[in-house]
Amino acid sequence: MQRYFIDNEDFFIEYAFIKNQDAHHIRNVMRMQKNDEVSIIVDSCEYLSRIENIEKEQIKVMITKKIENSNELNTNITIAHGLVKKDKMEQVVKTISELGAYAYYPVIMKRSTVTLDKNKEFKMDRCKLISKEAAELSRRVEMTKVFQPISFEQILSKSVFFDLCLVAYENEDKQNSLDIVLKSFKSKNVLVIVGPEGGIDQSEIDVLMERNFKKISLGKRILSTITAPIAVTSILAYYFELGITNEN
Amino acid sequence: MQRYFIDNEDFFIEYAFIKNQDAHHIRNVMRMQKNDEVSIIVDSCEYLSRIENIEKEQIKVMITKKIENSNELNTNITIAHGLVKKDKMEQVVKTISELGAYAYYPVIMKRSTVTLDKNKEFKMDRCKLISKEAAELSRRVEMTKVFQPISFEQILSKSVFFDLCLVAYENEDKQNSLDIVLKSFKSKNVLVIVGPEGGIDQSEIDVLMERNFKKISLGKRILSTITAPIAVTSILAYYFELGITNEN
Repeated sequence: MQRYFIDNEDFFIEYAFIKNQDAHHIRNVMRMQKNDEVSIIVDSCEYLSRIENIEKEQIKVMITKKIENSNELNTNITIAHGLVKKDKMEQVVKTISELGAYAYYPVIMKRSTVTLDKNKEFKMDRCKLISKEAAELSRRVEMTKVFQPISFEQILSKSVFFDLCLVAYENEDKQNSLDIVLKSFKSKNVLVIVGPEGGIDQSEIDVLMERNFKKISLGKRILSTITAPIAVTSILAYYFELGITNEN
Repeated sequence: MQRYFIDNEDFFIEYAFIKNQDAHHIRNVMRMQKNDEVSIIVDSCEYLSRIENIEKEQIKVMITKKIENSNELNTNITIAHGLVKKDKMEQVVKTISELGAYAYYPVIMKRSTVTLDKNKEFKMDRCKLISKEAAELSRRVEMTKVFQPISFEQILSKSVFFDLCLVAYENEDKQNSLDIVLKSFKSKNVLVIVGPEGGIDQSEIDVLMERNFKKISLGKRILSTITAPIAVTSILAYYFELGITNEN
């Protein structure tokens, strides 16, 4: 069954409209017809629906029933990732959206090799679309929220709203493994900072330590800036959903 | 420090030769000179060495000392992955090589969308090179061994040599989480089968169950054929190296 996130304003309890690229997808890619079934997702709820009318600009669907969907994690995992090139960012966003991450912030860090042009908007549209498509395919009812790049200072300000703030740090030794950190917290909102290609600068680590971030190791091997956020999301999602921490 | 895997036959205890693409990399990309230091890896051992002589075809290095490197996992994780297109395979191999996987087998499965041309060799050279480069960058002393595509029957025959055989299965319920399976095994060699794009066919699952494979869930969300092997390797590597299983 095809699944489409729609905007709240296109949902009218008994019927709804699917628009833009999704309407194009239904009409020209899937070549669906009147009465074919699709699933729509709005405000974290999923509904079975039947195509009523196919127009050029929008598809009208009739809601037939609400679908039970509990595929979201109970813990919100937010990844703050040192700003990297868009192709790498897209690969990370696609994968962590499948894995169930709550949000993704690109963060301008000391060793980021990508710099922002202050006179030009840094367009995240494609990244947001990738997050949406990955969430649809992985049967989520929420997509990973993708934000505009922010400064290191801005992520520090935001960090006060999280129950647990972690930083993946390659020089961290075995004693401070994720496991031990997680055992001591009942976390609902977790923030994880992962460095850009060049890693996290020592001065940034020092600031994070002052702000009560916990350093965690992801293992002895050095992970690339694409692999590290994916690995940490895999491990955290597993931990919070299926792992030992929640069972004890 | 640049790191290069070299062949056993190029290693002579006091000196060694770096050849082919790596020689090119030292000469033309890194523009290194005589007396510059590189690290070489041979037979799972790492050695600090000094460049002695730069020729067109090879670089002669003098071994200065052995480097202690314990970055390999104690558990061998082998991924058997339903045959997918080469770009996807390369992305998986790159990532699991960083994460510490032992071996990667592409497996021809019922729902593989890629078919093999029997009259043509399926070239895995680029995939092997990607595995080597990822292992060098992640500071491993072994690269993930990348094999030619094999049949489903062949992976079944090989499975008898593993202590624990798992299959990632999307319909598996929470009760059979990886956690519970791992708790009951002290595993040295783990094989994990992950399906191709179309997933694993029920008839294949039935055969795997007869052969004592354990079905495992990676969470409630449906993971793509690229993400699933990466997630399972992340979780297993974490588990065996830093997780609870080894501590109890």
